[in-house]
Amino acid sequence: MPLYNLVSRETQAEDTVVQVGVAAFGGGNFSVIAGPCAVENREELIELALQLKACGVQMLRGGVFKPRTSPYSFQGLGKEGLQFLAEAGAAAELPVVTEVLDVRDLDLVLQYADMIQIGSRNMQNFGLLREVGRVKHPVLLKRGLSATLEEWLLAAEYIVAEGNRQVVLCERGIRTFETATRNTLDISAIPLVKQLSHLPVVADPSHATGRRELVPPVARAAVMAGADGLMIEVHPAPERALSDGAQSLRPHQLEQFMRGLPALLQVRGNW
Amino acid sequence: MPLYNLVSRETQAEDTVVQVGVAAFGGGNFSVIAGPCAVENREELIELALQLKACGVQMLRGGVFKPRTSPYSFQGLGKEGLQFLAEAGAAAELPVVTEVLDVRDLDLVLQYADMIQIGSRNMQNFGLLREVGRVKHPVLLKRGLSATLEEWLLAAEYIVAEGNRQVVLCERGIRTFETATRNTLDISAIPLVKQLSHLPVVADPSHATGRRELVPPVARAAVMAGADGLMIEVHPAPERALSDGAQSLRPHQLEQFMRGLPALLQVRGNW
Amino acid sequence: MPLYNLVSRETQAEDTVVQVGVAAFGGGNFSVIAGPCAVENREELIELALQLKACGVQMLRGGVFKPRTSPYSFQGLGKEGLQFLAEAGAAAELPVVTEVLDVRDLDLVLQYADMIQIGSRNMQNFGLLREVGRVKHPVLLKRGLSATLEEWLLAAEYIVAEGNRQVVLCERGIRTFETATRNTLDISAIPLVKQLSHLPVVADPSHATGRRELVPPVARAAVMAGADGLMIEVHPAPERALSDGAQSLRPHQLEQFMRGLPALLQVRGNW
Amino acid sequence: MPLYNLVSRETQAEDTVVQVGVAAFGGGNFSVIAGPCAVENREELIELALQLKACGVQMLRGGVFKPRTSPYSFQGLGKEGLQFLAEAGAAAELPVVTEVLDVRDLDLVLQYADMIQIGSRNMQNFGLLREVGRVKHPVLLKRGLSATLEEWLLAAEYIVAEGNRQVVLCERGIRTFETATRNTLDISAIPLVKQLSHLPVVADPSHATGRRELVPPVARAAVMAGADGLMIEVHPAPERALSDGAQSLRPHQLEQFMRGLPALLQVRGNW
Repeated sequence: MPLYNLVSRETQAEDTVVQVGVAAFGGGNFSVIAGPCAVENREELIELALQLKACGVQMLRGGVFKPRTSPYSFQGLGKEGLQFLAEAGAAAELPVVTEVLDVRDLDLVLQYADMIQIGSRNMQNFGLLREVGRVKHPVLLKRGLSATLEEWLLAAEYIVAEGNRQVVLCERGIRTFETATRNTLDISAIPLVKQLSHLPVVADPSHATGRRELVPPVARAAVMAGADGLMIEVHPAPERALSDGAQSLRPHQLEQFMRGLPALLQVRGNW
Repeated sequence: MPLYNLVSRETQAEDTVVQVGVAAFGGGNFSVIAGPCAVENREELIELALQLKACGVQMLRGGVFKPRTSPYSFQGLGKEGLQFLAEAGAAAELPVVTEVLDVRDLDLVLQYADMIQIGSRNMQNFGLLREVGRVKHPVLLKRGLSATLEEWLLAAEYIVAEGNRQVVLCERGIRTFETATRNTLDISAIPLVKQLSHLPVVADPSHATGRRELVPPVARAAVMAGADGLMIEVHPAPERALSDGAQSLRPHQLEQFMRGLPALLQVRGNW
Repeated sequence: MPLYNLVSRETQAEDTVVQVGVAAFGGGNFSVIAGPCAVENREELIELALQLKACGVQMLRGGVFKPRTSPYSFQGLGKEGLQFLAEAGAAAELPVVTEVLDVRDLDLVLQYADMIQIGSRNMQNFGLLREVGRVKHPVLLKRGLSATLEEWLLAAEYIVAEGNRQVVLCERGIRTFETATRNTLDISAIPLVKQLSHLPVVADPSHATGRRELVPPVARAAVMAGADGLMIEVHPAPERALSDGAQSLRPHQLEQFMRGLPALLQVRGNW
Repeated sequence: MPLYNLVSRETQAEDTVVQVGVAAFGGGNFSVIAGPCAVENREELIELALQLKACGVQMLRGGVFKPRTSPYSFQGLGKEGLQFLAEAGAAAELPVVTEVLDVRDLDLVLQYADMIQIGSRNMQNFGLLREVGRVKHPVLLKRGLSATLEEWLLAAEYIVAEGNRQVVLCERGIRTFETATRNTLDISAIPLVKQLSHLPVVADPSHATGRRELVPPVARAAVMAGADGLMIEVHPAPERALSDGAQSLRPHQLEQFMRGLPALLQVRGNW
């Protein structure tokens, strides 16, 4: 018996499909989540959301509670950011996803977000996993920086064991000795997790690489490895972003990427 | 300017001394924390505490909220375990330390424990760090599995920035490619952190090695690297421990270790 | 000034193209190298080579001097294996590549092989690097298991500094904490190395993953990340291979992969 | 059956003792090897050797063939360096150890050195391992940067299988994600390798830490973990060393370390 059960492909052979508004993941569905690392400004976010929608993105992301290594870094706009995010999502008719750091913020976030993100640092915050396991919102579960596939699937099991089966896994790079990139995207984790589990898997090439110019090639790679979606950071002016500017695409760069995507998905489907 | 400030040796040249009942860490003080991985049984714990006290241990440890990779593993006794732990500490006249996993449990734990442990998986649970930064109990902050020294010190900065200066750092092994041991104790982190920060540092050779027979030599090594204390798992019958039996010393093994310790500390002091 | 100079994109803006018989790498050229981990048997190898040729492979690989962790494992056929490999290459009109482990074998290998492979364990065998830098054969330089990109490029610099500019880099996975796969293919290394250097880069999904079923998706990913070629292990009957059977494709699996490849390269070209 | 046999503690219960002139390792013997990273200058080396002898060192080290990441770095004095090293050893009545990088240099080195060092980058240079397995000189086998304990012991097995049983293992730090130190000394490898094998183990705190101020505490830690010796870099003027200056002790720092060592060994013996 594997340590995980409910999330195992042996327990459920068919893909779990997670539908969030116009976005869908798994069972042949592919969606792109895009947006800024952090919500910073209402007008800019609305404009960006409209641009993203126009180029084919299916979900808007934006952090309002930011997990920052230093207590002195920008920590996010909190409730006000949630309002901006929900407004931008509504304006562009896109569902929105944002990260919850603290169980005490969960009720608030549930009022504004369509999908709840559990970040890498909280992949083994078991109290938080259990709480999001008890809600009806779908959950995006990022892999921890040094989590094995087994630990990651067991973290998903914590959520599903509480009753919430709407879990999307997100490979976002692991910590290795290599310092040329922020992290190392574990590309083989994508097909392997899909073999081991019925849950959808998306890739986050922004956090994995930490370098804007590497995001498109690594995103394309993730698609061909079998990802059910992508999560990409986009900022209207990365050079003044309050966090993660170096890894954020400019809107026209995402647009260019999105134009090429359908042909790639078609090749993948025909193989 | 380093990213951390309040915990930096540049900000405060002299060692911080953390005193918890009969235990003290830093400024030349050295203490041993010992006890079972998890509190399992009232009578056994009291008997063990008395044995530990008799062989020179200064603090009793015992987990009651256990962070377990699998949702199906023993999760700890919770409140009942806190009562047993406090009772055993009182019986042996030893202060007690236990881990808090969830901010919502903090008030409860504060009623029973003398020191609050933040575990590896929560080293960047920033909400929890801030909350323990607002209490008067001293805090034992374990290094995350893949945390750099800078990230670890910044996690301590989160606590100290809220007003609680009573922080003891705990090196407990990092995750590497080597699978012969559970983790890899980063021995050079001990003198390096003491150079960078005024906070005391203790070592946990039990989690670092995961193998009972390696605990004494690695514990001795940590002492000579400059540690201000040790945290060692001890169980009266490791073969039936509900968690971490393979890395738990038997009481007579700890006793043997404790007998040799004063001579080692004397050599260290004279060098 | 970067530490490497001759291999730097700053020194030479245009791609280096490495041509080896019908195979070519770089400057828009893409080739697949395939064959068994080790040369085991003359007839089987010839038959396999013909199959590989028929499905579009451009180069035959096969180890005759095997770097084995244990002195008691099969060490390769040596000179006899070289003869089989050359014969099979001739029969299928494919150039052949094989690994040199020891400077003393170089002259012998040069008589039979069209391309010389430097394996991961020898990436910093500087005497060997210098020697292959003095010959006219092109060199396939695998990344070391724990080599940074900078160290890898400096290893290439050792070869080029001796006069041999025909170097192809091969990303074959790095060693990380993850044990579910043999190694972790560093997918972002492919576009990043191509940005830093003018040398072609190929990917080896067989050694990276160690699992047959992961080879096709990871190979496809490497193509979309920008690789100039692939190196894939194929064995007519992996279950009786003398080494690396678990990661070897069966011939029909490679054939299926090769059928889908042109469409993928076209998508890549059009993006 | 373990993969290694001849080096296994199961095959030979008693410690192997390796005696090299006045130095001895294993079976209760402890020796210190010290000297510069690279041999640079005849007079200075002789003077340093005399100082090292005076403070209790048992073996002189000095690199003459240097494995350098960049082809443009100082590569060592070669044969001339060997002569200087042998002369300094003779003057101080100390045996000498130096690294061989290339099988073609082995005969030359055997004429001058008392012990042959196989460096980290060559731990799996199997041709070189076999050749040093056929000579009568004792061998110091450094652990590879990302070698598991099993791979390290199998590298030793390659040597012993050829007939040379005089092998001393050297733990010199492994490559991890932590960048605050050059490498991470795997302190638990010391007692674990001694449990698995009868071969002596020494530690190299200089390469492990890369920082002079960390060398004494980490060296002391290695002693208490059970090491049979130490290898420490010392340079008369580290600020002008041609390699590894930052990690080289000054002679008076080594002297201070050596003064404290007997008391530490006594505590270890009495435990």
